[in-house]
Order: sequence, then C-alpha cells, then structure tokens
Amino acid sequence: MPSAPQPDRAPVAPVSAEEVERNGSGAQALIGYHLDLTGADGAGRVILDIDDRHLNRHGSLHGGIVAMMLDAASGFAVSRASDGPVLPNVATVSLNTNYVAPARGGHRVTAVGHVTGGGRKVVFASAQLLDQDGTLLATASGVFRCIRA
Amino acid sequence: MPSAPQPDRAPVAPVSAEEVERNGSGAQALIGYHLDLTGADGAGRVILDIDDRHLNRHGSLHGGIVAMMLDAASGFAVSRASDGPVLPNVATVSLNTNYVAPARGGHRVTAVGHVTGGGRKVVFASAQLLDQDGTLLATASGVFRCIRA
Amino acid sequence: MPSAPQPDRAPVAPVSAEEVERNGSGAQALIGYHLDLTGADGAGRVILDIDDRHLNRHGSLHGGIVAMMLDAASGFAVSRASDGPVLPNVATVSLNTNYVAPARGGHRVTAVGHVTGGGRKVVFASAQLLDQDGTLLATASGVFRCIRA
Amino acid sequence: MPSAPQPDRAPVAPVSAEEVERNGSGAQALIGYHLDLTGADGAGRVILDIDDRHLNRHGSLHGGIVAMMLDAASGFAVSRASDGPVLPNVATVSLNTNYVAPARGGHRVTAVGHVTGGGRKVVFASAQLLDQDGTLLATASGVFRCIRA
Repeated sequence: MPSAPQPDRAPVAPVSAEEVERNGSGAQALIGYHLDLTGADGAGRVILDIDDRHLNRHGSLHGGIVAMMLDAASGFAVSRASDGPVLPNVATVSLNTNYVAPARGGHRVTAVGHVTGGGRKVVFASAQLLDQDGTLLATASGVFRCIRA
Repeated sequence: MPSAPQPDRAPVAPVSAEEVERNGSGAQALIGYHLDLTGADGAGRVILDIDDRHLNRHGSLHGGIVAMMLDAASGFAVSRASDGPVLPNVATVSLNTNYVAPARGGHRVTAVGHVTGGGRKVVFASAQLLDQDGTLLATASGVFRCIRA
Repeated sequence: MPSAPQPDRAPVAPVSAEEVERNGSGAQALIGYHLDLTGADGAGRVILDIDDRHLNRHGSLHGGIVAMMLDAASGFAVSRASDGPVLPNVATVSLNTNYVAPARGGHRVTAVGHVTGGGRKVVFASAQLLDQDGTLLATASGVFRCIRA
Repeated sequence: MPSAPQPDRAPVAPVSAEEVERNGSGAQALIGYHLDLTGADGAGRVILDIDDRHLNRHGSLHGGIVAMMLDAASGFAVSRASDGPVLPNVATVSLNTNYVAPARGGHRVTAVGHVTGGGRKVVFASAQLLDQDGTLLATASGVFRCIRA
C-alpha cells in the first residue's frame, strides 16, 4: 500500500535488549520468533526462520503463524509509538490478514509493523510479511488498544 | 452473530480418525490443539487446553493462537462442506478476527467454524472461539479457496 | 455464523419514531434506506428497496451501499444496547464486509445488526444483509466506539 | 502502511475518458464522486467534494461512503492492472475498512487504490482515503475477483 504523505518524523530510539527480553512471552518462545525493536523508523520487526514445526498441511507457513507475526509486529510498533521508558501493554482489538503468497520452509521471513494513526487509546497499525528476497507474502491491518499502567 | 434463516440441511458424515490424522500439520503439533470433525452440523472444531506456552506477555491466550484456531476451525468446515471421500486442501485468502474477551491459562477453549456461503472455489466461513463456560472470546470471518487435486 | 450460547436477555424497548427521525442523516436520505429499531431483540434493521440509482456497473447492489447498510445496522444495534433515553452517538472504528452473493435491482434487502460483545466504550457488532427471501447476501463484523455526551 | 520493496514497473497507460464514462454506475451518479484513472502508477482514484448529503448524524462523512470510495478505488486499480483494451469487471469478495479520522463537510477527499498482489482471478488491493491536505482519514484492504468476459 502506498504511504500517505508523511510528516517528517524524529527518529525513534531503539528499545534496549533488556526491555525486549522483559516483553518476551510463552507464545514467542513456543514459535521461536525474534524481535527487532531497534529501527529508527519506530517499526516492530518479528523474524522467523521457518522450519517443519511451522508448516500447515500443504507444506507452507501456517496462516495462524502468519497472523501471529503480523499481530506482534503491529502491536510492538504501537508500543514503541507511546512515550515513556517502558513499552506499554497493547491489546489487539481487531486484526485483518490477507494472504498474498505462501511462505516456504527453510526461508527467513520478517513481519514489519507501523502505526498508521489513532489517538492515545485506540491506535491503528498495519504490517507486511516479507520473504527473504523482499517478496510480499501477507499484509495485515488492525485496531489496537494501549493499556497504560 | 444471529444466523440467517437456514435451509434444513442433511447431517454431515463425521470425518474418520485416520483422515483427521492425515490432515495434521507441524503447526498443530507445535501448538498442541486437537481437531473434532465429527459433528453432524459439519462444523470444524479446534480444541486447546491453554498452558503457559500459549500466553502473551499479559498472561492471556496469544492473539496469534486465537487467529490460528479460528482459521483452522473455519478451514476444516470448508473442507468438510466439499463432496468426496477425502478432505480437500483449503487455503486462507483473508481472515478478520475480533478479540472480544481475553482467554485465561488453564482453561479449555474451543473454536467452532461454519461455512456461510460461496461457491465451488471461493468459500466464506466464520468461527467463534468459546471459553469452557460458553463465553464468547473471539470471532472471525474469512475467505477461503478450495484447492481440488 | 452460529450463535454462541446466549444468556436469556430481557426484551429491548423499541426506539420511538421521533428518536429514529432525530437520528436521520444526509447519507440516509440520499440513499433512501429506512430504519427499524423496534425489534425486542435489540437489533438495528436497515431496509432498502433497490432501484437503478443503487446499482454498480454490473447491475447489482453497489458494494459500498452494502457496507453502508451493514455499518448502519451494526451501529444502531450498538446505540440500542446502551442505557438511557436517547440513542448515543456511535463511531465505526473498523468494519469488515464479506460479499457472499449479489443483490439484484427491484428487490427489498434488509441489514440486521446485533451486538456481539465488548464493554462501555469499545463494542463489537456484526450484521447480515438478507434478500427478501431470506438468502444471505453479505456479512459484516466491526468495532464501534460509543460516544457519550 | 510502508511499501514492500517494489520492482520497477512500467508506467500504466491512462484509461480514456470514454472508457471511464462507460464504467459509470447508478451509485456513482447518486453519490456524485469522480474517477481519475489516468495516473501512470496504475492507481484507481475516486474524488468527492463532501456536502450535506454525504454526512452521518455526527456531521462527518458517512462511513458507508468512505467504504464505497475505498472499494471503488481498489476495484478500479484491479481493473487497470489487467491487460487488454477495456476494463474488466471486478467483484469485491471482502473489504476491511479502518476509520482513522473523520472527514468534514466542505472538504475534497480522494481515495487512492493500488494492487498489492495476487494472480489472474483473485487479486489483493488496498486503498487510502486522504483529506485535501494529505491527512490520512481511512484505509482499506480487500480481496477482489476479476470477471473476464
């Protein structure tokens, strides 16, 4: 999707390795994806090396894992867009995923999420899943709720 | 969602345990959900006993696993709606998930999917994720493509 | 979509004709649909007699008008679910529409919306568009925000 | 949404005024939006000058008209991406719309749609609704089916 004209943005500070570690989850460990929250573009990046455990019965990356990666990439972009020293919790309200092309075993795929708009509580974000050669595999857009302590 | 007036339907034959086994996937084994494709209503049912491996960083069932279960329940309903002795492969084209309430660790949750319409190739289905007491946790609707051999 | 087990609900009082009138909009007048907010089930109902002005270039009801009717039916169901003497304003946050079958000119179609869950501010609702013989034409589910004065 | 790395594309020929005229519809005339299918980027552009007839009961552009414009912009992008001298008919299978900010009466808004992927029959496209100053008002992504004669 082509970007709307964007205002110039200040670069976003990278999230520390400790804070990323603190935000790990059981589901992340189970699937085995990695987070990269260091981009100055404020993106949430979720990286997975696809192996047999991640495949559906057709031999391509399971659609549920695709949704999981796009959800996490979007949600962490929402977290990063919030002010403050720690990442706020973010709950997904709604997520729409489109499956453009299948992802194959053995490939490294990356979900990249960005905030597209919204306010302090309800935030919109979208994400793309890209193959290791940059091919678009899936897109998602969603509504997220920032849960401030 | 309230049902549209439905024509009376003939009961759907249960899928055999062997055929269910044949349709297992790496992702299913990784997450640890079970399939129930025996209902005379033709539903796809996906059952998970939630443990710590399935949780997000807020301590509730990860949204990606919610999407995975709803996707699988819908997809197997599409497979069951097809004629023939074996379940045809089904690819998800698009899936929209709404997260109504969080699911907690220790609970058993069930995704129930049904076909809502469509033709031979493009089929619409929707699913609900229910807590063990019947509380609605999430809904999904999607577009699926039947891949005939 | 099959309903989740529902608690017994008290019947919902009908919205008065004056209150329905007060909630009319320019877009409603332009398209020419009618509201029925009297059902004891709390539904929002939006009724349209399709004529040539509503058709797309294929001769069936324009997908945008389908979305408009499903949006309005869902949104009014959210309004009706709120307590108080007047219908609160409701803003659509996100709407997903699936087009199951085309609607033809000359037919009367009805969108029926119901609340599926949520809290005081963020509410989930879904709707179905039915042809005059009860055939399912389209479904939608969405996220709505109640704007209390 | 940030774009995936895009291959260089040949410029797309503009659609003639006659062909645009031939693709008009009752719904287009009723709402009063205009098409611009001349961009060398292959986009579908749908332009509306918002007046009172287009407003919802809160005084902003009705969500159904937002969906209609995003649907049309996406669908015409799909048409333009097809080879051949005339625009093929395109049916919307599924459309997801996120409402980022309200659009006000008196403004000119433009929906811009692009194809994101897919094959000959099932095509994915997405669109953005932009205010006259470039502010992002809404996004949509959808699944479309090309109907070849």
